[in-house]
Amino acid sequence: MLLLHLADVDEAGWAKRLQAALGSYPVVRRGDGFDPADIRYILVWKPAPDAFEGLSNLELILSMGAGVDALLKHPALPPVPMVRFVDEDLTQRMSDYVVAQVTMHHRLQSRFQADQKARRWVQLYPPAAAETVVGIMGLGVLGQDAAERLVPLGFTVRAWSRTPKAIPGVEGFVGEEQLDAFLGGTDILVNLLPLTPQTTGILNTDTFRKLRRRLDGGPVIVNAARGGHQREADIAAALQDGTLGAASLDVFEIEPLPVDSPLWDIANCYITPHIAAISHPDTGARYFSQVIADHRAGKPLHNVVDRGRGY
Amino acid sequence: MLLLHLADVDEAGWAKRLQAALGSYPVVRRGDGFDPADIRYILVWKPAPDAFEGLSNLELILSMGAGVDALLKHPALPPVPMVRFVDEDLTQRMSDYVVAQVTMHHRLQSRFQADQKARRWVQLYPPAAAETVVGIMGLGVLGQDAAERLVPLGFTVRAWSRTPKAIPGVEGFVGEEQLDAFLGGTDILVNLLPLTPQTTGILNTDTFRKLRRRLDGGPVIVNAARGGHQREADIAAALQDGTLGAASLDVFEIEPLPVDSPLWDIANCYITPHIAAISHPDTGARYFSQVIADHRAGKPLHNVVDRGRGY
Repeated sequence: MLLLHLADVDEAGWAKRLQAALGSYPVVRRGDGFDPADIRYILVWKPAPDAFEGLSNLELILSMGAGVDALLKHPALPPVPMVRFVDEDLTQRMSDYVVAQVTMHHRLQSRFQADQKARRWVQLYPPAAAETVVGIMGLGVLGQDAAERLVPLGFTVRAWSRTPKAIPGVEGFVGEEQLDAFLGGTDILVNLLPLTPQTTGILNTDTFRKLRRRLDGGPVIVNAARGGHQREADIAAALQDGTLGAASLDVFEIEPLPVDSPLWDIANCYITPHIAAISHPDTGARYFSQVIADHRAGKPLHNVVDRGRGY
Repeated sequence: MLLLHLADVDEAGWAKRLQAALGSYPVVRRGDGFDPADIRYILVWKPAPDAFEGLSNLELILSMGAGVDALLKHPALPPVPMVRFVDEDLTQRMSDYVVAQVTMHHRLQSRFQADQKARRWVQLYPPAAAETVVGIMGLGVLGQDAAERLVPLGFTVRAWSRTPKAIPGVEGFVGEEQLDAFLGGTDILVNLLPLTPQTTGILNTDTFRKLRRRLDGGPVIVNAARGGHQREADIAAALQDGTLGAASLDVFEIEPLPVDSPLWDIANCYITPHIAAISHPDTGARYFSQVIADHRAGKPLHNVVDRGRGY
């Protein structure tokens, strides 16, 4: 039996699609009458503290999100394997966001917007794409896809990851000891890291000061990963004193972003309300029904979370 | 002998590079001492009314611009062949601009900017790229390159041209009789047409009303071709009454855009000062020295202007 425990999303829609995909295999929701001992699988999003209570025969936890940083902090997480959602549609949407932000900043949108406001006609020519270095932090599925879309557009792309990964046309930097070299040649920094104790707060003043200052207005950051990666006080200060030329932020330390945040009013801060990418129930039902079928058939699982590594 | 007649650009820089590329073949500028009867080639940008006076042995006119609409209106244009500049670097930069504008509007920048200004957190999800139809008007070198960059990003791309042209993954529409069908399925309209009597003023209210209204906020136009293609009064009205959701304009009926233009103050109008793409002297020197070498060797010429067609 599969139990759904999905807060803040259309749980009924997910239930309907999963039941259709799983055929006769039973799907239940919180509040339905069922014996907790019958639950073999649980699909979760923002699980409550008692979400796993009584699930004595649980075999697998399914995470609706690709990021499991919040889930790993759950106070009563059962010691069974966890599979996270890796969703082609979500990957496409995330890359849509990243490409839109990178190309917008490459074309100096903040500068032209300021000129427009002042009714100023100044023919500043943006650099060629090849002259602009995009540095991607994190080379999971999302980082790799973003890199593979930016390279054909002509950008010079480099990436920083925990372990070496070879992507054609992308210069790789690995581990703590190569971080400064990576940052020192980056004009537009894109964060797609998992949130772990090691990466918490990585978008801070010290990091911003290490970026290359070749783009008109200053270097740019794009954060589409987690609010926990960023120090918002540092970002606000860096945007105002010119350490950064612009920032695109889809995630925040507290969400929704509090109305008294100074970020709202900063013209070169591009705020979106955590909408870069979303897990869609249609692809989700296909994905998780396949995971359950594979698990029941004793086949190897993909995208299993490594609790030590944190993702 | 090659004469340079380049207004408003770094003529000395072009002269230096062309002389280096042409070796012993003489290059002169306006004001240099030379016999007009010795001039075989003239490279022009914004030629004065008397630019061609006395050039009795002129064999070829070289246009520094890719667009020759202004040049064709010159009151004393000699009846010799004209070759226009088709520049890979310029093509790349034009596609940089087009991709940046298309992706920015696909990701609903106007909407999120308005929400930010109001400190509003509303989780609106942009459509998938595949659900968004980009319609390109004009399939010359620039239109083709833009299409070939947008297709791998996942957009549904269609194009409208005077004559049929096959581009993989792009639905083609041809001629006046297919224009309405083309517009009726387009969310983001990109103009890369040559400016001719037939295309003058094509970006007008009637055209805007025929676009598909599926994108949040309304359809979008991007004009990177010529100011003569657009009716700015129609654009201002369409942006204000919701016929259009946004417009990115790099060119204007009068340039520089007059300070009293209403466009400056419209938040969903994205103005850049005719900087989408520029001809670079380095690539220009390579290109035009090759044209001259080919012509002197009796080889066939490429990118020759068809005066009847207008480009």
